[in-house]
Amino acid sequence: NHKLKLFTLNANEPLAQEVADVIGRPLGECSVKRFSDGEVQINIEESIRGCDVFVIQSTSYPVNDNLMELLIMIDALRRASARTINVVMPYYGYARQDRKARSREPITAKLVANLLEKAGADRVIAMDLHAPQIQGFFDIPIDHLVAVPLLSDYFKNQGFKGDDIVIVSPDHGGVTRARKMADRLKAPIAIIDKRRPKPNVSEVMNIVGQVDGKIAILIDDIIDTAGTITAGANAIIESGAKEVYACCTHPVLSGPAIQRINDSQIKELVITNTIELPEDKNSPKIKQLSVAKLIGDAIVRVFEEKSVSTLFD
Amino acid sequence: NHKLKLFTLNANEPLAQEVADVIGRPLGECSVKRFSDGEVQINIEESIRGCDVFVIQSTSYPVNDNLMELLIMIDALRRASARTINVVMPYYGYARQDRKARSREPITAKLVANLLEKAGADRVIAMDLHAPQIQGFFDIPIDHLVAVPLLSDYFKNQGFKGDDIVIVSPDHGGVTRARKMADRLKAPIAIIDKRRPKPNVSEVMNIVGQVDGKIAILIDDIIDTAGTITAGANAIIESGAKEVYACCTHPVLSGPAIQRINDSQIKELVITNTIELPEDKNSPKIKQLSVAKLIGDAIVRVFEEKSVSTLFD
Ligand SMILES: Nc1ncnc2c1ncn2[C@@H]1O[C@H](COP(=O)(O)O)[C@@H](O)[C@H]1O
Ligand SMILES: Nc1ncnc2c1ncn2[C@@H]1O[C@H](COP(=O)(O)O)[C@@H](O)[C@H]1O
Repeated sequence: NHKLKLFTLNANEPLAQEVADVIGRPLGECSVKRFSDGEVQINIEESIRGCDVFVIQSTSYPVNDNLMELLIMIDALRRASARTINVVMPYYGYARQDRKARSREPITAKLVANLLEKAGADRVIAMDLHAPQIQGFFDIPIDHLVAVPLLSDYFKNQGFKGDDIVIVSPDHGGVTRARKMADRLKAPIAIIDKRRPKPNVSEVMNIVGQVDGKIAILIDDIIDTAGTITAGANAIIESGAKEVYACCTHPVLSGPAIQRINDSQIKELVITNTIELPEDKNSPKIKQLSVAKLIGDAIVRVFEEKSVSTLFD
Repeated sequence: NHKLKLFTLNANEPLAQEVADVIGRPLGECSVKRFSDGEVQINIEESIRGCDVFVIQSTSYPVNDNLMELLIMIDALRRASARTINVVMPYYGYARQDRKARSREPITAKLVANLLEKAGADRVIAMDLHAPQIQGFFDIPIDHLVAVPLLSDYFKNQGFKGDDIVIVSPDHGGVTRARKMADRLKAPIAIIDKRRPKPNVSEVMNIVGQVDGKIAILIDDIIDTAGTITAGANAIIESGAKEVYACCTHPVLSGPAIQRINDSQIKELVITNTIELPEDKNSPKIKQLSVAKLIGDAIVRVFEEKSVSTLFD
């Protein structure tokens, strides 16, 4: 007989508003501002005592500010006697720092998990974590949503399917994801196989699989500076593909990304709105799909204590 | 037979370098940068296995970036098998959010303590915490340094002492600090007593104690927007003081602070270097004293497992 309350912080208000519309409940009253010296000032302006609270916050750029907003909000909710604190992170920042690649490196993705738990989170809902192993960084329950069905359906609805197309993974790490998309579109896969023949010699890009004469769709989880994806797209065209499309869940798009995409052979880049795109990061090549329905449905199912994995059927 | 290693992050490198000079050891090799998307990238470039590591970082502006650098560094040090991780925070950000002043507020000063402990800090050295109770937010040992002797000695060396001067607390919360300075200068104290006679009526400033004909020295822990201190200084002059000086430990100096100080009756503002002053925050009225000796001595005493409190004798 407890209540569901939904709050947003500053990272991605438009998505949070869409999720609120999907669920059919208003966003909770809460002011999230800065003091004169830059410290985060949060005031929850309605009672949440005994409620199941869901806080939507992507830890995208500016990542440290967005993460601190989230941690401070969790602290405030806990002290205000929320029944459960459910953290909805459409984009989980620092996910690429998920292992010690060199000596004396931090594992920041695990640190973030520890900080969220210590602050008082009871549950996390995340999407397309850079490595699914990050689920194991948490001792609290975590639901892991995936965007492959959403991205696949977009292409399917445009008539892309079967042997005329090929789903391409831009690196070895993304093959499982490409395989899932290929299954949905009943298409074959290919892999861009980057190797450095000798140390200090530039990388060669080799395409494993058949792209000649086909429409290729590159899929990745994150597109950051877009170096990998645009180089891959150009290599695919050189290998005889008719057209190349690209898609990803998380449009980080930092530094030269937009310029590179505009200058590349990519015909269209399909992204989701886990990260809000600032005005200056738009491009006529970009098509943004919404994850609001997926996240809204997941929130309702968690609240009703039903399995979230059925959302992927 | 273990070793002391000193590291700095980005908040206040000049102070860290001074501390290194006081101790007579170099700063450890460590690169603290940003990835293209703004995420913190830390690489410790020398072995610290089995060492007693001291990390100097003020969580001043930009507070969230500086705090995350510190947490990530602690994570990296722990995973690299440091013997002990000693966090030296000349300025402890979020200290003013130390209680629930209103319903549903966070207690961010406690959250920060929790995060530091969870990341893996073994000990904290801090200076003039906004409330000494913040020491109790930690379950690990914390050494609390104070700048009153440093500030007092500066004025004493200029010949300020005895009944010609008066030490003024800008509010009720700072009376203990003013009393300590007054003891060192053998001077009397006064208090600025702000009251709001009725709700929605502007505050009146009343000075409790004698300032007429004297040189007044205002002392506070933090000067942020400088509203309180400059209004206090002007009220002191109106009450007949000959001259007014001000001093504080932590020069936050945000927003209109420098303009207000320049426009005020304050003859000189004496601050310390717990927070690095950016170029655009200078003023001919400001005199900055160094806490490097105090912090260096504290680090050596902690390393040698001697009492730090003797530093205040
Ligand atoms: N924010 C970031 N931007 C670019 N590279 C990163 C970032 N965070 C971590 N990395 C690096 O990316 C690598 C992980 O990427 P991946 O091999 O795709 O899992 C690690 O070696 C990290 O050092
Ligand atoms: N960074 C900040 N800037 C200005 N005011 C703050 C800041 N952090 C906390 N506060 C407020 O300052 C008050 C504490 O100041 P004090 O009464 O001097 O201990 C609290 O009511 C806080 O809401």
